Amino acid sequence: MKALLALPALLLLTGAQSPKPLTPTDIVAKAPASAWKSIPPEDLLVIDYQGGGRSVIQLAPAFAPVHVANIRALARAGYWIGSSIYRVQDNYVAQWGVNDDGKPLPAGVVKRPPAEYVRSSQGLAIRPFPYRDSYAVRVGHTGGWPVARYRSADVSLTHCYGTVGVGRDLKPDTGTGGELYAVIGHAPRHLDRNIAIVGRVIEGIEQMSALPRGTEALGFYRQGVPGRAIASIRLASSMPAVARPSFQYMDEASASFTAYLRARANRQDDFYQVPAGGVDICNAPVPVRRTPAP
Amino acid sequence: MKALLALPALLLLTGAQSPKPLTPTDIVAKAPASAWKSIPPEDLLVIDYQGGGRSVIQLAPAFAPVHVANIRALARAGYWIGSSIYRVQDNYVAQWGVNDDGKPLPAGVVKRPPAEYVRSSQGLAIRPFPYRDSYAVRVGHTGGWPVARYRSADVSLTHCYGTVGVGRDLKPDTGTGGELYAVIGHAPRHLDRNIAIVGRVIEGIEQMSALPRGTEALGFYRQGVPGRAIASIRLASSMPAVARPSFQYMDEASASFTAYLRARANRQDDFYQVPAGGVDICNAPVPVRRTPAP
Repeated sequence: MKALLALPALLLLTGAQSPKPLTPTDIVAKAPASAWKSIPPEDLLVIDYQGGGRSVIQLAPAFAPVHVANIRALARAGYWIGSSIYRVQDNYVAQWGVNDDGKPLPAGVVKRPPAEYVRSSQGLAIRPFPYRDSYAVRVGHTGGWPVARYRSADVSLTHCYGTVGVGRDLKPDTGTGGELYAVIGHAPRHLDRNIAIVGRVIEGIEQMSALPRGTEALGFYRQGVPGRAIASIRLASSMPAVARPSFQYMDEASASFTAYLRARANRQDDFYQVPAGGVDICNAPVPVRRTPAP
Repeated sequence: MKALLALPALLLLTGAQSPKPLTPTDIVAKAPASAWKSIPPEDLLVIDYQGGGRSVIQLAPAFAPVHVANIRALARAGYWIGSSIYRVQDNYVAQWGVNDDGKPLPAGVVKRPPAEYVRSSQGLAIRPFPYRDSYAVRVGHTGGWPVARYRSADVSLTHCYGTVGVGRDLKPDTGTGGELYAVIGHAPRHLDRNIAIVGRVIEGIEQMSALPRGTEALGFYRQGVPGRAIASIRLASSMPAVARPSFQYMDEASASFTAYLRARANRQDDFYQVPAGGVDICNAPVPVRRTPAP
Protein backbone atom coordinates (compact mmCIF):
# COMPACT_ATOMS: atom_id res chain seq x y z
CA MET A 1 0.00 0.00 0.00
CA LYS A 2 1.60 3.19 -1.14
CA ALA A 3 0.41 6.05 0.94
CA LEU A 4 1.33 8.88 -1.43
CA LEU A 5 1.74 10.98 1.68
CA ALA A 6 3.52 9.41 4.59
CA LEU A 7 2.17 9.64 8.09
CA PRO A 8 4.57 11.40 10.44
CA ALA A 9 4.39 8.54 12.92
CA LEU A 10 8.14 8.31 13.45
CA LEU A 11 8.59 11.99 14.03
CA LEU A 12 9.61 11.66 17.66
CA LEU A 13 11.78 8.60 17.25
CA THR A 14 14.75 10.16 15.53
CA GLY A 15 17.01 10.02 18.57
CA ALA A 16 20.20 12.02 18.23
CA GLN A 17 19.49 13.21 14.72
CA SER A 18 18.54 16.81 14.10
CA PRO A 19 14.83 17.37 14.61
CA LYS A 20 12.68 16.84 11.55
CA PRO A 21 10.92 19.87 10.16
CA LEU A 22 7.31 20.13 11.27
CA THR A 23 4.60 19.43 8.73
CA PRO A 24 1.68 21.84 8.35
CA THR A 25 -0.45 19.30 10.22
CA ASP A 26 2.06 19.22 13.09
CA ILE A 27 2.10 23.00 13.31
CA VAL A 28 -1.69 23.17 13.48
CA ALA A 29 -1.81 20.41 16.11
CA LYS A 30 0.80 22.13 18.28
CA ALA A 31 -0.50 25.69 17.95
CA PRO A 32 -1.15 27.27 21.36
CA ALA A 33 -4.63 28.34 22.44
CA SER A 34 -3.61 31.95 21.83
CA ALA A 35 -3.28 31.23 18.09
CA TRP A 36 -6.99 30.47 17.79
CA LYS A 37 -10.00 32.77 17.62
CA SER A 38 -13.57 31.70 18.23
CA ILE A 39 -16.19 31.97 15.52
CA PRO A 40 -19.40 33.56 16.90
CA PRO A 41 -22.42 31.24 16.76
CA GLU A 42 -24.37 33.77 14.66
CA ASP A 43 -21.68 33.30 11.99
CA LEU A 44 -22.23 29.52 11.79
CA LEU A 45 -24.82 28.20 9.35
CA VAL A 46 -25.63 24.54 9.98
CA ILE A 47 -27.06 22.45 7.14
CA ASP A 48 -28.61 19.14 8.20
CA TYR A 49 -29.52 16.72 5.44
CA GLN A 50 -32.45 14.35 5.35
CA GLY A 51 -31.12 10.91 6.12
CA GLY A 52 -28.15 12.31 8.04
CA GLY A 53 -25.04 14.28 7.38
CA ARG A 54 -24.18 17.89 8.16
CA SER A 55 -22.27 20.73 6.59
CA VAL A 56 -21.22 23.81 8.57
CA ILE A 57 -20.58 27.17 6.93
CA GLN A 58 -18.77 30.12 8.47
CA LEU A 59 -20.42 33.36 7.33
CA ALA A 60 -18.43 36.47 6.42
CA PRO A 61 -20.53 39.46 7.55
CA ALA A 62 -17.59 41.83 7.23
CA PHE A 63 -17.57 41.32 3.47
CA ALA A 64 -21.21 40.92 2.44
CA PRO A 65 -23.26 42.36 5.32
CA VAL A 66 -26.58 42.69 3.48
CA HIS A 67 -26.38 39.23 1.94
CA VAL A 68 -25.35 37.71 5.28
CA ALA A 69 -28.23 39.49 7.02
CA ASN A 70 -30.54 38.01 4.38
CA ILE A 71 -29.14 34.54 4.97
CA ARG A 72 -29.63 34.87 8.72
CA ALA A 73 -33.24 36.02 8.17
CA LEU A 74 -33.88 33.14 5.77
CA ALA A 75 -32.43 30.64 8.26
CA ARG A 76 -34.50 32.04 11.15
CA ALA A 77 -37.67 31.84 9.05
CA GLY A 78 -37.04 28.21 8.13
CA TYR A 79 -37.00 29.22 4.47
CA TRP A 80 -34.79 26.31 3.38
CA ILE A 81 -36.67 23.51 5.15
CA GLY A 82 -37.41 20.94 2.49
CA SER A 83 -35.08 22.52 -0.07
CA SER A 84 -32.26 20.64 -1.78
CA ILE A 85 -28.90 20.63 -3.47
CA TYR A 86 -30.12 20.70 -7.06
CA ARG A 87 -26.92 21.38 -9.00
CA VAL A 88 -23.53 19.65 -8.78
CA GLN A 89 -21.07 20.55 -11.52
CA ASP A 90 -17.82 18.63 -11.47
CA ASN A 91 -14.70 20.66 -10.62
CA TYR A 92 -16.88 23.70 -10.01
CA VAL A 93 -19.78 24.07 -7.59
CA ALA A 94 -22.58 22.42 -5.65
CA GLN A 95 -25.61 24.72 -5.41
CA TRP A 96 -28.63 24.56 -3.14
CA GLY A 97 -31.73 26.44 -2.17
CA VAL A 98 -35.42 26.57 -2.91
CA ASN A 99 -35.02 26.67 -6.70
CA ASP A 100 -38.43 28.30 -7.09
CA ASP A 101 -38.35 32.00 -7.90
CA GLY A 102 -42.03 32.22 -6.97
CA LYS A 103 -41.61 31.30 -3.30
CA PRO A 104 -42.23 34.42 -1.20
CA LEU A 105 -39.28 35.73 0.78
CA PRO A 106 -39.67 36.13 4.54
CA ALA A 107 -40.04 39.59 6.04
CA GLY A 108 -36.79 41.45 6.44
CA VAL A 109 -35.07 39.94 3.42
CA VAL A 110 -33.69 42.55 1.03
CA LYS A 111 -34.86 41.56 -2.46
CA ARG A 112 -32.17 43.44 -4.38
CA PRO A 113 -29.05 43.66 -2.23
CA PRO A 114 -26.20 45.89 -3.34
CA ALA A 115 -23.33 44.25 -5.24
CA GLU A 116 -21.17 43.27 -2.27
CA TYR A 117 -18.46 41.85 -4.50
CA VAL A 118 -15.66 44.00 -3.08
CA ARG A 119 -15.28 46.21 -0.04
CA SER A 120 -12.97 48.98 1.02
CA SER A 121 -9.78 47.83 2.66
CA GLN A 122 -10.08 50.73 5.10
CA GLY A 123 -10.10 49.52 8.67
CA LEU A 124 -8.86 46.06 7.77
CA ALA A 125 -5.53 44.84 9.14
CA ILE A 126 -4.33 42.68 6.27
CA ARG A 127 -1.43 40.33 6.79
CA PRO A 128 0.37 40.20 3.42
CA PHE A 129 0.67 36.76 1.86
CA PRO A 130 4.33 36.23 0.96
CA TYR A 131 3.89 34.37 -2.35
CA ARG A 132 2.84 35.32 -5.87
CA ASP A 133 -0.75 35.25 -7.02
CA SER A 134 -1.91 34.59 -10.60
CA TYR A 135 -4.80 37.04 -10.34
CA ALA A 136 -4.40 39.88 -7.88
CA VAL A 137 -1.80 42.59 -7.28
CA ARG A 138 -1.59 41.43 -3.67
CA VAL A 139 -3.25 38.80 -1.54
CA GLY A 140 -3.35 38.46 2.22
CA HIS A 141 -5.45 37.50 5.22
CA THR A 142 -7.69 39.49 7.52
CA GLY A 143 -9.97 38.23 10.26
CA GLY A 144 -9.23 34.68 9.19
CA TRP A 145 -10.21 35.25 5.55
CA PRO A 146 -8.11 35.20 2.41
CA VAL A 147 -8.47 38.46 0.48
CA ALA A 148 -7.21 39.83 -2.82
CA ARG A 149 -6.44 43.41 -3.73
CA TYR A 150 -6.53 44.45 -7.35
CA ARG A 151 -5.67 47.84 -8.81
CA SER A 152 -8.00 49.79 -6.58
CA ALA A 153 -7.81 49.88 -2.81
CA ASP A 154 -10.80 47.55 -2.62
CA VAL A 155 -10.45 43.93 -1.60
CA SER A 156 -12.50 40.86 -2.30
CA LEU A 157 -12.65 37.47 -0.70
CA THR A 158 -11.13 34.77 -2.90
CA HIS A 159 -12.93 31.85 -4.50
CA CYS A 160 -11.11 28.81 -3.10
CA TYR A 161 -12.20 25.23 -2.45
CA GLY A 162 -15.13 25.41 -0.02
CA THR A 163 -15.92 29.10 -0.63
CA VAL A 164 -19.65 29.84 -0.45
CA GLY A 165 -21.23 32.44 -2.73
CA VAL A 166 -24.61 33.70 -3.78
CA GLY A 167 -26.20 32.28 -6.92
CA ARG A 168 -27.45 35.05 -9.15
CA ASP A 169 -28.83 35.72 -12.61
CA LEU A 170 -27.35 38.24 -15.03
CA LYS A 171 -26.58 41.80 -14.02
CA PRO A 172 -27.76 43.87 -12.33
CA ASP A 173 -29.13 41.03 -10.19
CA THR A 174 -27.01 40.07 -7.20
CA GLY A 175 -29.10 37.24 -5.73
CA THR A 176 -30.86 37.38 -2.39
CA GLY A 177 -28.83 34.68 -0.66
CA GLY A 178 -31.71 32.22 -1.00
CA GLU A 179 -29.62 30.16 -3.41
CA LEU A 180 -26.04 29.45 -2.47
CA TYR A 181 -23.15 27.49 -3.93
CA ALA A 182 -19.95 26.03 -2.57
CA VAL A 183 -16.82 25.53 -4.64
CA ILE A 184 -16.00 21.81 -4.98
CA GLY A 185 -13.08 21.99 -7.40
CA HIS A 186 -10.06 23.99 -8.42
CA ALA A 187 -10.32 27.61 -7.30
CA PRO A 188 -12.49 29.54 -9.81
CA ARG A 189 -10.80 32.84 -9.03
CA HIS A 190 -12.30 34.42 -12.15
CA LEU A 191 -15.50 34.70 -10.10
CA ASP A 192 -13.80 37.04 -7.62
CA ARG A 193 -15.32 40.55 -7.84
CA ASN A 194 -18.21 39.15 -9.88
CA ILE A 195 -20.34 37.58 -7.22
CA ALA A 196 -21.04 37.97 -3.52
CA ILE A 197 -18.99 35.64 -1.34
CA VAL A 198 -20.71 35.04 1.96
CA GLY A 199 -18.60 32.41 3.67
CA ARG A 200 -16.89 29.04 3.47
CA VAL A 201 -17.66 25.45 4.34
CA ILE A 202 -15.61 24.58 7.42
CA GLU A 203 -16.92 21.07 8.02
CA GLY A 204 -18.77 18.53 5.91
CA ILE A 205 -17.81 19.77 2.43
CA GLU A 206 -17.76 16.08 1.42
CA GLN A 207 -21.54 16.05 1.92
CA MET A 208 -21.59 18.21 -1.22
CA SER A 209 -18.44 17.30 -3.12
CA ALA A 210 -19.12 13.55 -3.18
CA LEU A 211 -22.63 13.90 -4.63
CA PRO A 212 -23.44 12.58 -8.09
CA ARG A 213 -22.80 15.19 -10.75
CA GLY A 214 -25.83 16.65 -12.48
CA THR A 215 -26.28 15.54 -16.07
CA GLU A 216 -27.89 18.72 -17.44
CA ALA A 217 -26.09 21.85 -18.64
CA LEU A 218 -24.07 23.49 -15.85
CA GLY A 219 -24.49 20.41 -13.66
CA PHE A 220 -28.17 20.84 -12.86
CA TYR A 221 -29.91 17.62 -11.94
CA ARG A 222 -32.32 16.34 -14.51
CA GLN A 223 -35.98 17.13 -13.92
CA GLY A 224 -37.33 14.43 -11.62
CA VAL A 225 -33.97 13.71 -10.00
CA PRO A 226 -34.60 14.79 -6.42
CA GLY A 227 -31.18 16.12 -5.44
CA ARG A 228 -29.85 16.01 -1.92
CA ALA A 229 -32.73 16.84 0.41
CA ILE A 230 -32.06 19.43 3.10
CA ALA A 231 -33.85 18.89 6.40
CA SER A 232 -32.94 22.29 7.86
CA ILE A 233 -30.52 25.19 7.66
CA ARG A 234 -30.10 26.94 10.97
CA LEU A 235 -27.81 29.42 12.62
CA ALA A 236 -25.84 27.85 15.47
CA SER A 237 -27.05 30.79 17.57
CA SER A 238 -30.63 29.52 17.12
CA MET A 239 -29.73 26.04 18.38
CA PRO A 240 -29.81 25.01 22.04
CA ALA A 241 -26.42 25.88 23.58
CA VAL A 242 -25.60 22.26 24.35
CA ALA A 243 -26.23 21.21 20.75
CA ARG A 244 -24.36 24.03 19.05
CA PRO A 245 -21.28 23.19 17.05
CA SER A 246 -18.37 25.46 17.92
CA PHE A 247 -15.30 26.30 15.85
CA GLN A 248 -12.14 28.35 15.91
CA TYR A 249 -9.91 29.67 13.14
CA MET A 250 -6.19 30.30 13.29
CA ASP A 251 -5.34 33.96 13.79
CA GLU A 252 -3.25 35.18 10.87
CA ALA A 253 -1.30 37.37 13.30
CA SER A 254 -0.04 34.33 15.22
CA ALA A 255 3.43 32.82 14.92
CA SER A 256 1.74 29.51 14.24
CA PHE A 257 0.11 30.90 11.10
CA THR A 258 3.44 32.21 9.84
CA ALA A 259 5.01 28.81 10.43
CA TYR A 260 2.05 27.09 8.78
CA LEU A 261 2.33 29.16 5.60
CA ARG A 262 6.07 28.58 5.43
CA ALA A 263 5.57 24.83 5.82
CA ARG A 264 2.81 24.77 3.17
CA ALA A 265 5.20 26.47 0.76
CA ASN A 266 8.22 24.36 1.72
CA ARG A 267 7.17 20.83 2.53
CA GLN A 268 10.18 19.09 4.02
CA ASP A 269 8.83 15.93 5.54
CA ASP A 270 10.29 12.65 4.35
CA PHE A 271 8.03 12.32 1.37
CA TYR A 272 9.23 15.48 -0.36
CA GLN A 273 12.38 15.65 -2.44
CA VAL A 274 12.04 19.28 -3.48
CA PRO A 275 10.09 21.93 -1.56
CA ALA A 276 7.95 24.10 -3.82
CA GLY A 277 9.27 27.43 -2.53
CA GLY A 278 5.85 28.97 -2.91
CA VAL A 279 2.17 28.22 -2.61
CA ASP A 280 -0.99 29.74 -3.95
CA ILE A 281 -3.37 31.22 -1.42
CA CYS A 282 -6.05 28.61 -2.11
CA ASN A 283 -3.56 25.80 -1.44
CA ALA A 284 -2.89 27.14 2.06
CA PRO A 285 -6.37 27.20 3.58
CA VAL A 286 -6.76 28.97 6.93
CA PRO A 287 -6.79 26.25 9.60
CA VAL A 288 -10.15 25.80 11.31
CA ARG A 289 -10.87 23.38 14.16
CA ARG A 290 -13.63 22.36 16.47
CA THR A 291 -13.29 24.23 19.74
CA PRO A 292 -11.50 21.87 22.14
CA ALA A 293 -13.24 20.82 25.33
CA PRO A 294 -12.16 23.09 28.22
CA MET B 1 -33.46 29.31 -10.86
CA LYS B 2 -30.24 31.24 -10.74
CA ALA B 3 -27.78 29.74 -13.09
CA LEU B 4 -24.61 31.23 -11.58
CA LEU B 5 -23.21 31.09 -15.08
CA ALA B 6 -25.47 32.16 -17.90
CA LEU B 7 -25.85 30.14 -21.05
CA PRO B 8 -24.79 32.07 -24.14
CA ALA B 9 -28.09 31.36 -25.86
CA LEU B 10 -28.65 34.94 -27.02
CA LEU B 11 -25.21 35.31 -28.47
CA LEU B 12 -26.37 35.58 -32.07
CA LEU B 13 -29.40 37.76 -31.44
CA THR B 14 -27.69 41.05 -30.76
CA GLY B 15 -28.69 42.59 -34.06
CA ALA B 16 -26.90 45.84 -34.82
CA GLN B 17 -24.91 45.88 -31.60
CA SER B 18 -21.24 45.10 -31.63
CA PRO B 19 -20.58 41.36 -31.51
CA LYS B 20 -20.32 39.89 -28.05
CA PRO B 21 -16.95 38.55 -27.00
CA LEU B 22 -16.67 34.79 -27.39
CA THR B 23 -16.64 32.67 -24.28
CA PRO B 24 -13.97 29.98 -23.82
CA THR B 25 -16.65 27.41 -24.65
CA ASP B 26 -17.51 29.24 -27.88
CA ILE B 27 -13.86 29.35 -28.90
CA VAL B 28 -13.43 25.62 -28.34
CA ALA B 29 -16.65 24.86 -30.25
CA LYS B 30 -15.60 27.00 -33.22
CA ALA B 31 -11.96 25.93 -33.38
CA PRO B 32 -11.05 24.63 -36.87
CA ALA B 33 -9.94 21.04 -37.40
CA SER B 34 -6.37 22.29 -37.80
CA ALA B 35 -6.35 23.38 -34.14
CA TRP B 36 -6.74 19.81 -32.95
CA LYS B 37 -4.22 16.98 -32.67
CA SER B 38 -5.09 13.34 -32.31
CA ILE B 39 -4.08 11.35 -29.25
CA PRO B 40 -2.55 7.99 -30.25
CA PRO B 41 -4.55 4.97 -29.02
CA GLU B 42 -1.50 3.62 -27.16
CA ASP B 43 -1.64 6.79 -25.04
CA LEU B 44 -5.24 6.17 -23.94
CA LEU B 45 -5.83 4.11 -20.81
CA VAL B 46 -9.47 3.05 -20.46
CA ILE B 47 -10.83 2.18 -17.02
CA ASP B 48 -14.15 0.33 -17.02
CA TYR B 49 -15.89 -0.07 -13.67
CA GLN B 50 -17.96 -2.98 -12.50
CA GLY B 51 -21.57 -1.97 -12.75
CA GLY B 52 -20.83 0.56 -15.48
CA GLY B 53 -19.00 3.82 -15.92
CA ARG B 54 -15.72 4.60 -17.61
CA SER B 55 -12.78 6.91 -17.10
CA VAL B 56 -10.25 7.63 -19.85
CA ILE B 57 -6.70 8.72 -19.13
CA GLN B 58 -4.26 10.26 -21.60
CA LEU B 59 -0.74 9.01 -20.87
CA ALA B 60 2.32 11.26 -21.06
CA PRO B 61 5.17 9.09 -22.35
CA ALA B 62 7.33 12.12 -23.14
CA PHE B 63 7.57 12.91 -19.44
CA ALA B 64 7.68 9.57 -17.64
CA PRO B 65 8.67 7.00 -20.29
CA VAL B 66 9.63 4.16 -17.93
CA HIS B 67 6.55 4.56 -15.77
CA VAL B 68 4.30 4.79 -18.84
CA ALA B 69 5.93 1.68 -20.31
CA ASN B 70 5.21 -0.07 -17.01
CA ILE B 71 1.58 1.05 -17.10
CA ARG B 72 1.18 -0.22 -20.65
CA ALA B 73 2.70 -3.58 -19.67
CA LEU B 74 0.43 -3.80 -16.62
CA ALA B 75 -2.62 -3.02 -18.77
CA ARG B 76 -1.68 -5.59 -21.41
CA ALA B 77 -1.20 -8.25 -18.72
CA GLY B 78 -4.61 -7.56 -17.19
CA TYR B 79 -2.89 -6.71 -13.92
CA TRP B 80 -5.69 -4.43 -12.70
CA ILE B 81 -8.63 -6.74 -13.43
CA GLY B 82 -10.55 -6.98 -10.17
CA SER B 83 -8.67 -4.10 -8.52
CA SER B 84 -10.39 -1.06 -7.06
CA ILE B 85 -10.33 2.58 -6.12
CA TYR B 86 -9.44 2.16 -2.46
CA ARG B 87 -8.64 5.71 -1.40
CA VAL B 88 -10.64 8.91 -1.91
CA GLN B 89 -9.41 11.94 0.02
CA ASP B 90 -11.55 15.03 -0.27
CA ASN B 91 -9.99 17.96 -2.14
CA TYR B 92 -6.97 15.81 -2.92
CA VAL B 93 -6.87 12.48 -4.74
CA ALA B 94 -8.64 9.27 -5.68
CA GLN B 95 -6.20 6.35 -5.80
CA TRP B 96 -6.57 2.92 -7.33
CA GLY B 97 -4.70 -0.26 -8.03
CA VAL B 98 -4.12 -3.70 -6.61
CA ASN B 99 -3.29 -2.48 -3.10
CA ASP B 100 -1.35 -5.66 -2.39
CA ASP B 101 2.43 -5.29 -2.39
CA GLY B 102 2.74 -9.08 -2.58
CA LYS B 103 1.07 -9.47 -5.99
CA PRO B 104 3.75 -10.42 -8.53
CA LEU B 105 4.39 -7.93 -11.31
CA PRO B 106 4.07 -9.09 -14.91
CA ALA B 107 7.17 -9.65 -17.00
CA GLY B 108 8.66 -6.50 -18.44
CA VAL B 109 7.64 -4.22 -15.59
CA VAL B 110 10.57 -2.27 -14.14
CA LYS B 111 10.39 -2.71 -10.36
CA ARG B 112 12.39 0.40 -9.47
CA PRO B 113 11.93 2.99 -12.19
CA PRO B 114 14.09 6.10 -12.17
CA ALA B 115 12.64 9.23 -10.58
CA GLU B 116 10.92 10.68 -13.64
CA TYR B 117 9.78 13.76 -11.76
CA VAL B 118 11.35 16.27 -14.13
CA ARG B 119 12.87 16.07 -17.58
CA SER B 120 15.18 18.21 -19.65
CA SER B 121 13.46 20.93 -21.63
CA GLN B 122 15.85 20.23 -24.51
CA GLY B 123 13.94 19.40 -27.66
CA LEU B 124 10.65 20.68 -26.31
CA ALA B 125 8.92 23.58 -28.02
CA ILE B 126 7.29 25.30 -25.06
CA ARG B 127 4.66 27.93 -25.63
CA PRO B 128 5.05 30.40 -22.75
CA PHE B 129 1.98 30.90 -20.60
CA PRO B 130 1.36 34.64 -20.36
CA TYR B 131 0.25 34.84 -16.72
CA ARG B 132 1.96 34.62 -13.33
CA ASP B 133 2.40 31.35 -11.48
CA SER B 134 2.59 30.96 -7.70
CA TYR B 135 5.15 28.17 -7.89
CA ALA B 136 7.40 28.15 -10.93
CA VAL B 137 9.72 30.65 -12.61
CA ARG B 138 7.84 30.05 -15.85
CA VAL B 139 4.98 27.87 -16.99
CA GLY B 140 3.90 26.96 -20.48
CA HIS B 141 2.53 24.24 -22.73
CA THR B 142 4.18 21.63 -24.90
CA GLY B 143 2.59 18.76 -26.79
CA GLY B 144 -0.72 19.58 -25.16
CA TRP B 145 0.65 19.42 -21.61
CA PRO B 146 1.06 22.15 -19.02
CA VAL B 147 4.66 22.32 -17.79
CA ALA B 148 6.56 24.30 -15.19
CA ARG B 149 10.17 25.38 -15.24
CA TYR B 150 11.93 26.08 -11.98
CA ARG B 151 15.45 27.39 -11.50
CA SER B 152 17.10 24.69 -13.56
CA ALA B 153 16.40 24.10 -17.24
CA ASP B 154 14.34 21.05 -16.33
CA VAL B 155 10.59 21.04 -16.60
CA SER B 156 7.88 19.06 -14.84
CA LEU B 157 4.26 18.46 -15.62
CA THR B 158 1.96 20.33 -13.25
CA HIS B 159 -0.44 18.80 -10.73
CA CYS B 160 -3.82 20.16 -11.78
CA TYR B 161 -7.36 18.83 -11.42
CA GLY B 162 -7.44 15.46 -13.20
CA THR B 163 -3.66 14.95 -13.24
CA VAL B 164 -2.67 11.30 -12.82
CA GLY B 165 0.44 10.34 -10.88
CA VAL B 166 2.16 7.29 -9.47
CA GLY B 167 1.52 6.38 -5.84
CA ARG B 168 4.78 5.72 -4.05
CA ASP B 169 6.24 5.14 -0.62
CA LEU B 170 9.05 7.20 0.87
CA LYS B 171 12.25 7.88 -1.00
CA PRO B 172 14.05 6.45 -2.84
CA ASP B 173 10.96 4.54 -4.02
CA THR B 174 9.24 5.93 -7.08
CA GLY B 175 6.37 3.46 -7.46
CA THR B 176 5.96 1.04 -10.33
CA GLY B 177 2.82 2.56 -11.81
CA GLY B 178 0.72 -0.26 -10.39
CA GLU B 179 -0.98 2.20 -8.07
CA LEU B 180 -2.14 5.47 -9.54
CA TYR B 181 -4.00 8.53 -8.30
CA ALA B 182 -5.95 11.31 -9.93
CA VAL B 183 -6.27 14.80 -8.47
CA ILE B 184 -9.90 15.54 -7.51
CA GLY B 185 -9.47 18.91 -5.82
CA HIS B 186 -7.55 22.14 -5.88
CA ALA B 187 -4.22 21.78 -7.67
CA PRO B 188 -1.66 20.28 -5.24
CA ARG B 189 1.25 21.87 -7.03
CA HIS B 190 3.57 21.14 -4.08
CA LEU B 191 3.67 17.58 -5.47
CA ASP B 192 5.34 18.80 -8.68
CA ARG B 193 8.92 17.50 -8.90
CA ASN B 194 8.19 15.06 -6.08
CA ILE B 195 6.29 12.35 -7.86
CA ALA B 196 5.99 10.88 -11.35
CA ILE B 197 3.12 12.35 -13.35
CA VAL B 198 2.01 9.94 -16.04
CA GLY B 199 -1.08 11.54 -17.53
CA ARG B 200 -4.46 13.12 -16.96
CA VAL B 201 -8.08 12.06 -16.86
CA ILE B 202 -9.71 13.38 -20.04
CA GLU B 203 -13.16 11.85 -19.60
CA GLY B 204 -15.07 10.41 -16.67
CA ILE B 205 -13.23 12.12 -13.80
CA GLU B 206 -16.64 12.26 -12.07
CA GLN B 207 -16.47 8.47 -11.77
CA MET B 208 -13.73 9.15 -9.22
CA SER B 209 -14.48 12.60 -7.85
CA ALA B 210 -18.08 11.81 -6.85
CA LEU B 211 -17.17 8.71 -4.83
CA PRO B 212 -17.70 8.60 -1.07
CA ARG B 213 -14.66 9.89 0.77
CA GLY B 214 -12.64 7.35 2.74
CA THR B 215 -12.96 7.64 6.48
CA GLU B 216 -9.47 6.46 7.44
CA ALA B 217 -6.32 8.58 7.58
CA LEU B 218 -5.43 10.03 4.14
CA GLY B 219 -8.85 9.04 2.80
CA PHE B 220 -8.29 5.28 2.66
CA TYR B 221 -11.48 3.28 2.83
CA ARG B 222 -12.01 1.43 6.06
CA GLN B 223 -11.07 -2.24 6.04
CA GLY B 224 -14.05 -4.16 4.70
CA VAL B 225 -15.35 -1.24 2.62
CA PRO B 226 -14.97 -2.57 -0.90
CA GLY B 227 -14.15 0.62 -2.81
CA ARG B 228 -15.07 1.15 -6.43
CA ALA B 229 -14.51 -2.11 -8.26
CA ILE B 230 -12.57 -1.95 -11.51
CA ALA B 231 -13.61 -4.42 -14.20
CA SER B 232 -10.66 -3.71 -16.49
CA ILE B 233 -7.99 -1.21 -17.40
CA ARG B 234 -6.96 -1.45 -21.04
CA LEU B 235 -5.06 0.53 -23.60
CA ALA B 236 -7.32 1.80 -26.39
CA SER B 237 -4.79 0.27 -28.78
CA SER B 238 -5.65 -3.17 -27.35
CA MET B 239 -9.36 -2.68 -28.00
CA PRO B 240 -11.10 -3.57 -31.27
CA ALA B 241 -10.83 -0.58 -33.61
CA VAL B 242 -14.58 -0.04 -33.72
CA ALA B 243 -14.84 0.07 -29.93
CA ARG B 244 -11.88 2.35 -29.29
CA PRO B 245 -12.55 5.75 -27.81
CA SER B 246 -10.74 8.48 -29.71
CA PHE B 247 -9.74 11.95 -28.53
CA GLN B 248 -8.01 15.09 -29.67
CA TYR B 249 -6.35 17.91 -27.75
CA MET B 250 -6.06 21.53 -28.77
CA ASP B 251 -2.65 22.40 -30.20
CA GLU B 252 -1.05 25.10 -28.09
CA ALA B 253 0.45 26.57 -31.27
CA SER B 254 -3.01 27.28 -32.71
CA ALA B 255 -4.71 30.68 -32.80
CA SER B 256 -7.66 29.03 -31.09
CA PHE B 257 -5.54 28.18 -28.06
CA THR B 258 -4.27 31.74 -27.81
CA ALA B 259 -7.84 33.02 -27.97
CA TYR B 260 -8.94 30.42 -25.44
CA LEU B 261 -6.32 31.46 -22.88
CA ARG B 262 -7.14 35.12 -23.35
CA ALA B 263 -10.84 34.40 -22.82
CA ARG B 264 -10.16 32.28 -19.72
CA ALA B 265 -8.21 35.19 -18.27
CA ASN B 266 -10.68 37.87 -19.34
CA ARG B 267 -14.21 36.55 -19.16
CA GLN B 268 -16.44 39.12 -20.79
CA ASP B 269 -19.73 37.37 -21.32
CA ASP B 270 -22.80 38.95 -19.77
CA PHE B 271 -22.34 37.33 -16.39
CA TYR B 272 -19.02 39.00 -15.65
CA GLN B 273 -18.68 42.51 -14.32
CA VAL B 274 -14.91 42.52 -14.05
CA PRO B 275 -12.54 40.29 -16.06
CA ALA B 276 -9.81 38.75 -13.92
CA GLY B 277 -6.94 39.89 -16.12
CA GLY B 278 -5.06 36.68 -15.40
CA VAL B 279 -5.57 33.00 -14.79
CA ASP B 280 -3.57 30.26 -13.20
CA ILE B 281 -2.44 27.46 -15.44
CA CYS B 282 -4.64 24.88 -13.71
CA ASN B 283 -7.71 27.08 -14.24
CA ALA B 284 -7.15 27.03 -18.01
CA PRO B 285 -7.12 23.31 -18.79
CA VAL B 286 -6.05 22.28 -22.28
CA PRO B 287 -9.23 21.59 -24.26
CA VAL B 288 -9.75 17.92 -25.11
CA ARG B 289 -12.62 16.54 -27.18
CA ARG B 290 -13.86 13.29 -28.63
CA THR B 291 -12.72 12.99 -32.22
CA PRO B 292 -15.64 14.17 -34.36
CA ALA B 293 -17.17 11.76 -36.84
CA PRO B 294 -15.64 12.28 -40.31
